[in-house]
Amino acid sequence: MSNGKSEFDLIAWIRRQADCLPPSLLKSIGDDAAVFDPGPSRAVVVTTDMLLEDVHFRRRWTSSCFLGRKSLAVNVSDLAAMGARPYACLLALALPPELTGDYFCGFVRGFLEEARQWNMCLAGGDLSRNSLVLVTVTAWGYVETGPPLYRSAAQEGDWIVVVGELGFSRRGLGILSQEDPDLGRIESEEALYTWAGDAFRYRCLKAHLLPTPLADVGLWLQQNGLANAMIDVSDGLVSDLSQVARESGLAAQLETERIPLPRGAEDQDRALDSALHGGEDYALLFTASHPQLARLQRSYPSTFPSCNVIGRMIEGEPAVYLIRRGESQKCEPKGFDHFRPPTNSD
Amino acid sequence: MSNGKSEFDLIAWIRRQADCLPPSLLKSIGDDAAVFDPGPSRAVVVTTDMLLEDVHFRRRWTSSCFLGRKSLAVNVSDLAAMGARPYACLLALALPPELTGDYFCGFVRGFLEEARQWNMCLAGGDLSRNSLVLVTVTAWGYVETGPPLYRSAAQEGDWIVVVGELGFSRRGLGILSQEDPDLGRIESEEALYTWAGDAFRYRCLKAHLLPTPLADVGLWLQQNGLANAMIDVSDGLVSDLSQVARESGLAAQLETERIPLPRGAEDQDRALDSALHGGEDYALLFTASHPQLARLQRSYPSTFPSCNVIGRMIEGEPAVYLIRRGESQKCEPKGFDHFRPPTNSD
Repeated sequence: MSNGKSEFDLIAWIRRQADCLPPSLLKSIGDDAAVFDPGPSRAVVVTTDMLLEDVHFRRRWTSSCFLGRKSLAVNVSDLAAMGARPYACLLALALPPELTGDYFCGFVRGFLEEARQWNMCLAGGDLSRNSLVLVTVTAWGYVETGPPLYRSAAQEGDWIVVVGELGFSRRGLGILSQEDPDLGRIESEEALYTWAGDAFRYRCLKAHLLPTPLADVGLWLQQNGLANAMIDVSDGLVSDLSQVARESGLAAQLETERIPLPRGAEDQDRALDSALHGGEDYALLFTASHPQLARLQRSYPSTFPSCNVIGRMIEGEPAVYLIRRGESQKCEPKGFDHFRPPTNSD
Repeated sequence: MSNGKSEFDLIAWIRRQADCLPPSLLKSIGDDAAVFDPGPSRAVVVTTDMLLEDVHFRRRWTSSCFLGRKSLAVNVSDLAAMGARPYACLLALALPPELTGDYFCGFVRGFLEEARQWNMCLAGGDLSRNSLVLVTVTAWGYVETGPPLYRSAAQEGDWIVVVGELGFSRRGLGILSQEDPDLGRIESEEALYTWAGDAFRYRCLKAHLLPTPLADVGLWLQQNGLANAMIDVSDGLVSDLSQVARESGLAAQLETERIPLPRGAEDQDRALDSALHGGEDYALLFTASHPQLARLQRSYPSTFPSCNVIGRMIEGEPAVYLIRRGESQKCEPKGFDHFRPPTNSD
């Protein structure tokens, strides 16, 4: 599609791409709003997340196809953290008029590819011009039986468990910052691998540019009643765990030796810092009682990413404490905060 | 609140302001996502709209309080156009760090004031820094019985009816463009009236800065089965009516003499052009069969804004035709299109 299309042309084009609408989606693209039948669900879970050019991403470092995928993936991760099954989404997209050709099509292609992966449909949205690219996605899904998994439901004595990898995304961002490559045309994982040059760099870049939300894991934990509280690691392990601690009114003890660090990392102290504070990991962090953990260890599917017990929720001031060589020390969140002034250590 | 607060401080502050949460809202601000119980509704209606600085508004021309109100109001108008009862919303807000003090508080105050007016709750959202102010609101509500009112459901022979005023918002924008006033501190309708200086200017400015969505009217029409198709007038009467025509596969005939024009307008041709193409009116445009219209005329509440029959849906090429002094002429939409290059007549 060439540039200079009207808003109507763009919407019509998206509408032709979006397929496989479930009968419960009563109205999708092409009206003032989308309409769906929630069925028997007693818990609809809904979330929204922005990705803004020059705040969350640089146009030079990511193709629009990757951006489309990531913009939905980060929202799916929020649904996963509640134990919800993804259902549908709305896309609010603003972009400069000169990007309404290939860039726009690449974005929508990536977005819909990600949607298909999670069996979601694009139900509607809003388009606007803007000098920079802005994406706000709203996604929703269902918890079919039992309560969703809240941050506030951790119990004293619960084990703290993490599924997925920590610190890779920050490393990926580090590579981009240092090398400032033009990856605007890299639209497949193969092409990214080739550019990266080795498996470790590829993992870091992929974690940052194309995170995989752990939707299947979140759903499985909720459906099997294997977690009390859950959150996704988006701001950083310590930052997100401190939210669980605060909302649950408990202290969280992390044993640093148990935190999974990447092999091949040059410096273990830096690797630990990335794992604790890196952010954008989209791992799942949950708490489980002793019986829940025992059941989990018996039944954890081998196809899921590795699952690590890294600490415990105990009575005490709601905060995160690091246990290192037997000593406990309070650890302040230094994950990403949009309005915190930068410090020397950033 | 002073500037330089952390993201967490801002969220905590919003959370303290947001009140009156219904029991069906199972989780609001403070988790990865909001959770609600849709109850017996078989039709949840969900919409999203962006307001972007220097695209949709200028910071100089509107206080953050007014912006907060409008950003929700335009979404409520979309719910109204489906005949839905508003329920809740998510707020994605990006702003420069230096605006996290009074500006932020004013915005949230306005937003929550508007939410209270429509009995909606703020269920969650996302905050980010950005060089310009960006707002994306997602709002949802219910249609309790019967189908929502779609654009595509107009029937041959239906009357075309408009509720509310047309063309005032464009006039308001004209005043702002010509006079470039600093209205950043104007936070009440009284203060706006005083600044405007007379009733007509005030109506124009209010239509643009503080539109009133016709939520009660939309709900009443749906609940009483008095409309077949409905849309809100956001892009412009002709542009929005052409969507109804296209989606319904019918021609729409507008009688220009029947279109309500403001008294006190200097030039009737310009006034008609504003009414046809102005946009951002947030009037409701619907089609009704002859029996529906007869029932409507008997029972239309006197407290609702005036309601005008302005044309008819007929068999023919899906487009809008203007009848003026007995002659019919096809009228192309020239309402706002984000990606249309500007023309001389803009």
